[in-house]
Amino acid sequence: MDIKNVTHVDNVKLRDDGQAVVILDQSLLPGRTEYAELEKPQEMYDAIGKLRVRGAPAIGICAAYCMYVLAARRGKCDNFLQELHKDGDFLKSSRPTAVNLKWAVDRILKVADSIADESWDKILETLRKEAVTIQEEDMAMCFKISEYGLSVIKEGDGILTHCNAGPLATSRYGTALGPILLAKERGINVKVFADETRPLLQGARLTAYELDKAGVDVTLICDNMASSVMSRGWIQACFVGCDRVAANGDTANKIGTSGVAILAKHYGIPFYVLGPTSTIDLECRTGADIPIELREAEEIKKMFFREPSSPESVKCYNPAFDVTDHSLITGIITENGIAYPPFEESLKRMSNVQDATFL
Amino acid sequence: MDIKNVTHVDNVKLRDDGQAVVILDQSLLPGRTEYAELEKPQEMYDAIGKLRVRGAPAIGICAAYCMYVLAARRGKCDNFLQELHKDGDFLKSSRPTAVNLKWAVDRILKVADSIADESWDKILETLRKEAVTIQEEDMAMCFKISEYGLSVIKEGDGILTHCNAGPLATSRYGTALGPILLAKERGINVKVFADETRPLLQGARLTAYELDKAGVDVTLICDNMASSVMSRGWIQACFVGCDRVAANGDTANKIGTSGVAILAKHYGIPFYVLGPTSTIDLECRTGADIPIELREAEEIKKMFFREPSSPESVKCYNPAFDVTDHSLITGIITENGIAYPPFEESLKRMSNVQDATFL
Repeated sequence: MDIKNVTHVDNVKLRDDGQAVVILDQSLLPGRTEYAELEKPQEMYDAIGKLRVRGAPAIGICAAYCMYVLAARRGKCDNFLQELHKDGDFLKSSRPTAVNLKWAVDRILKVADSIADESWDKILETLRKEAVTIQEEDMAMCFKISEYGLSVIKEGDGILTHCNAGPLATSRYGTALGPILLAKERGINVKVFADETRPLLQGARLTAYELDKAGVDVTLICDNMASSVMSRGWIQACFVGCDRVAANGDTANKIGTSGVAILAKHYGIPFYVLGPTSTIDLECRTGADIPIELREAEEIKKMFFREPSSPESVKCYNPAFDVTDHSLITGIITENGIAYPPFEESLKRMSNVQDATFL
Repeated sequence: MDIKNVTHVDNVKLRDDGQAVVILDQSLLPGRTEYAELEKPQEMYDAIGKLRVRGAPAIGICAAYCMYVLAARRGKCDNFLQELHKDGDFLKSSRPTAVNLKWAVDRILKVADSIADESWDKILETLRKEAVTIQEEDMAMCFKISEYGLSVIKEGDGILTHCNAGPLATSRYGTALGPILLAKERGINVKVFADETRPLLQGARLTAYELDKAGVDVTLICDNMASSVMSRGWIQACFVGCDRVAANGDTANKIGTSGVAILAKHYGIPFYVLGPTSTIDLECRTGADIPIELREAEEIKKMFFREPSSPESVKCYNPAFDVTDHSLITGIITENGIAYPPFEESLKRMSNVQDATFL
């Protein structure tokens, strides 16, 4: 067991010829380890929409590489900028909730806008570098987030996590799983309880798989067992990722996160959100401004099951995310430090600093 | 659509020749409707242990019939009482949490003890009648529980339920689903949200199936979506069944129930437990005295899935029940009326009355 088994997986990268984005298909894990090559806009859109690549930071990185590949494949043309903006709008529409997708696409577009008068080779090279930079920054951010997160963990702690915010969802260490992997690396023992996270089972398929592979003590539970585990005194902190954080601290994350936060509050357990500052959307005043993606009933009734779990005629409600009220959150752990309430102030400060030593 | 499609299903009955208990195999629903005939102690033990018959009241009824069948099949013998007590101990050990199982077996044994000197035919006939009486009493109790439950529902209400406490789990109307079915019968419209209830999906497979068949407006959600649905103001009451209620009101029910109760409290939604007074165990002072059954990891990782949801090496924690603290419960709805806090007093009163008009 070596945490490098987990922290050095290429979940998103450029193919050597630069003509495709290569992703580890997360929808097939843990049973099959297969890579998919994305060349066309529709393939990219589907890969994001169908969660073959998932995790807010990983989606952002993937989208940035996609933008480069689309420009490279189309080649030099008069309406290059116009076409690239169209591509960006299309990719951004694949999932509405995570802000990193929009953030990464807009960052590539901004660079493209600023160098549109340069030579084609220069333009392409600059876009490629920007995408690589986004990924490298994410690695660095995940490491810093992990360090800050580790500061609230002590030997022997039980940690509950929901969904997957590990290396697969990000780069290298991950966000919510980062402090846990770093603890493992430094010989600090923690015991993790992973919610399986219905309907798509990211906790069972990805988190339990990643932590097990890294040699971390992990126990898989169904989502509805979190209260039981907390009531037994086995949990000292909850760590979750985030898809979008509003200016007041309200946080959109995988469906079920708000329930975990309410349970944590009931049992007096600290609840931490972990994510890069690119996930903070100061333009969203509160969680009510965050669009919540609704997905197909099939995900609940059929996707992973041998036979449908309930009759065809039964309807389902399947929101992909929920919003955790800021009042339930102990701290939001970013690459620039830990934001504590009141979040209006601390998040603004986090978003504007370049150097964590000022905090 | 007719609620009789649901309320007149023979989930547990005696075979015509009296030599077997016939159960509707709930573990195969909704895909297949198959009946199983139980003749031998091990078959009975397995049917209960593997949840082919489930729901605290249905288990009690089934066990009572099983005791009769075992006596009838063994025939007259000198150590009849001793053997029957052995059978009872064996059946009672099939599931530790639900008190109805113990209650029904002990009731048959008590009758057997009292008529041991009678003729064999008389003994058998008395045992058979006692089992039938247990089932008929359950029908009457479920109807009364449904009436009391209906008194807290009004037109247009949204009701959240967890697991299955409907006709399949009981007799006729069910407990937690009873008021909903009665509302339907009387033209009162309610909108039900059914938690799928991992790991065994009783909410998806049984509750959604039963309510859909009865023509009730039902929406299936994953367990972790309850918070989201409550936060939108769609839920006016939670109705759940119970496997054992302690003297102070602490209630053991399907895993996840305590989480629903905590969410309901957070969102200011009344939370009702519904069950016959036979579920109240005054000998259990608090929930801490209720044994909680731990089940196999396979149920979480493999049972219903096309492929295992996580690697073989990942361990699971799989408690079948949890205990909801009495402080989270608005009322406990029994056939003798609704018990409100302080439960120490109201439950004692409920358990001792024969006639609800005194309450």
